[in-house]
Amino acid sequence: MSPWKAAKPSDSIREIDTPALILDLDAFERNLAKMQQSLSGSQVRLRPHAKSHKCPEIAARQIAMGAVGICCQKVSEAACFVDHGIQDILITNQVVGSTKLHHLMALARRARIGVLVDHLEQVMALSAAATTYGTKLDVYVEVDVGAGRCGVAPGEATALLAQAIHMAPCLNFAGLQCYHGAAQHLRTPEMRIAAIRHAADVAQQSRSAIEAIGINVPVITGAGTGSFTHERDSGVFTEIQAGSYIFMDRDYADNQRGHGDPVFDHALFVLTAVMSINQHGKVVVDAGLKASSVDSGMPGVWQRPGCHYIKASDEHGVITLPPGKTLPLGEQLWLIPGHCDPTVNLYDEMICVRQGMVEAVWQIAARGAVL
Amino acid sequence: MSPWKAAKPSDSIREIDTPALILDLDAFERNLAKMQQSLSGSQVRLRPHAKSHKCPEIAARQIAMGAVGICCQKVSEAACFVDHGIQDILITNQVVGSTKLHHLMALARRARIGVLVDHLEQVMALSAAATTYGTKLDVYVEVDVGAGRCGVAPGEATALLAQAIHMAPCLNFAGLQCYHGAAQHLRTPEMRIAAIRHAADVAQQSRSAIEAIGINVPVITGAGTGSFTHERDSGVFTEIQAGSYIFMDRDYADNQRGHGDPVFDHALFVLTAVMSINQHGKVVVDAGLKASSVDSGMPGVWQRPGCHYIKASDEHGVITLPPGKTLPLGEQLWLIPGHCDPTVNLYDEMICVRQGMVEAVWQIAARGAVL
Repeated sequence: MSPWKAAKPSDSIREIDTPALILDLDAFERNLAKMQQSLSGSQVRLRPHAKSHKCPEIAARQIAMGAVGICCQKVSEAACFVDHGIQDILITNQVVGSTKLHHLMALARRARIGVLVDHLEQVMALSAAATTYGTKLDVYVEVDVGAGRCGVAPGEATALLAQAIHMAPCLNFAGLQCYHGAAQHLRTPEMRIAAIRHAADVAQQSRSAIEAIGINVPVITGAGTGSFTHERDSGVFTEIQAGSYIFMDRDYADNQRGHGDPVFDHALFVLTAVMSINQHGKVVVDAGLKASSVDSGMPGVWQRPGCHYIKASDEHGVITLPPGKTLPLGEQLWLIPGHCDPTVNLYDEMICVRQGMVEAVWQIAARGAVL
Repeated sequence: MSPWKAAKPSDSIREIDTPALILDLDAFERNLAKMQQSLSGSQVRLRPHAKSHKCPEIAARQIAMGAVGICCQKVSEAACFVDHGIQDILITNQVVGSTKLHHLMALARRARIGVLVDHLEQVMALSAAATTYGTKLDVYVEVDVGAGRCGVAPGEATALLAQAIHMAPCLNFAGLQCYHGAAQHLRTPEMRIAAIRHAADVAQQSRSAIEAIGINVPVITGAGTGSFTHERDSGVFTEIQAGSYIFMDRDYADNQRGHGDPVFDHALFVLTAVMSINQHGKVVVDAGLKASSVDSGMPGVWQRPGCHYIKASDEHGVITLPPGKTLPLGEQLWLIPGHCDPTVNLYDEMICVRQGMVEAVWQIAARGAVL
């Protein structure tokens, strides 16, 4: 990591070294509040996904605002949050292999931990490990609700797994994971509504199959920032796992908003500076692939009409300018990451700003926690 | 970062937690030797690019094999290497802004540091800072040799900048940076030969313009893994900056090899494990976007004919299987990153293996050094 930090509290924004990951605290706090407002009055609880931020300061604020806990994607990521005092974590993933099970069981002794399964072999391995380690674990059956990635087929297959979990002495059948990842970036509200209607139908069908063998289904969890209003209104889902709403990356903002969808603000930016100005109609900035993940396309350029970030190499970004426009060397630009989650994962800290000043520097403690 | 490491020395490969960044030491050492052999007998020196590996252990081995120093892309990256004892670094980038100049000058007091300029304003700022800090700096003029990114136009514009550097009391005009990034992944040898012939021509033309005003051009530096044999044979270039040859990512291996080009071996892998096997004809592995950068396409699957990594999300990868083939849960697969540089930048350490065993764990000390 860099031997020095991009900024310290009470620096002005102009003094921030670039590229740096910036959190606009006013926008972030508005997003936190809007999500809680969106769920208030419903019976649906919020368990935001911490893979987006990997930051204990943010998880603590989400829980203080009403979240019941957090989601993580990896055992090591969850361990970072437990180390920072978070006590209720759902790992929204299958955990396979003896090394991982060892760490998972150690974690389950320190906090309430949930994990997913989509295969009987996973249930047997979890059961054996939990027994060996003398610990108790919440286990959710992941249902393939349309994304065609992980998960079992809806209906009877879920009942078989629920029964196996239910019979295992150290496992607690906690419910169904019904996340539809592929629905999040469907561009029109009609497409997202149809996808989530299907997800809710097969979640309901799976719940019925499990209840038919006398097992209660306490939780049906899923949803992301792109679709959560539909899961909220489904009458089937009980928990929402959205994560990106706190930041709003460019790719989510490209979705057409549906009626009644809350408007989340861009709160996460990559601050960059112009370092080369020799090419006609374009400049080169100091934020490239290692400063903003381009897996979901190039970053947007914030409040610079006609400026487009068109190409990233390791540590260079090329921005085209509107006709006749130039920018000086050293000019700061604010980029909106195409995809916030892997962008956050590039940084050790985020610089939190308000009204032109650095207010705090938050550690991205679970950055790189990929195990 | 993860609270535990993926492996420790003397573990067997089977025990490595996944996903993990793996260096095959035999292949890596062959690549080191092949590059030095490729340059032996020529007057061209090797200054490998450390942005690829960010690892002091590797830089030390490159220098022990004959490299004259290393390249870095960022001031903070260079600072990490100076902290680990590297004493001769060319920062192949423009350095703009007072904060960065402060760190650059502090570094130039501790090691031989070179930096690029492509604008008179940068020369003036470097000159003022070097004078203030009482330090001496090597400054190279970057020439746009065809990539259309940074650099001045060849010829007279380079002479103007060289003269300004030459006149500045604390700056040493060290030569020309003539790197043609866009040529590295031109797929046919003929296209790469033509691109580097053009680069060498304009480098020569710039050298002549500078010599015509009585200034010596000690170094002409550039080249990458895709094209370096052509710069080597140009009679113009004196230094080679290739970096990826030690690892060989999938995107470089996709180039058609030219006559006499050395064959570098894949030495860097992402070890991953199968975690979900419910979908017909495909499996889901535990290495996604946060384990292997996809900016240059999906990773390859090593020595598994007919298996294709087709889709990455944050922590999931989907691999299609050949007809009739299945894989069990927990099966380890070796992925060849599409682009090694940003993939290395995701990890805190690389697990070095030989003959089925972990031999060492090397710190990626400059991981995240983006300032």
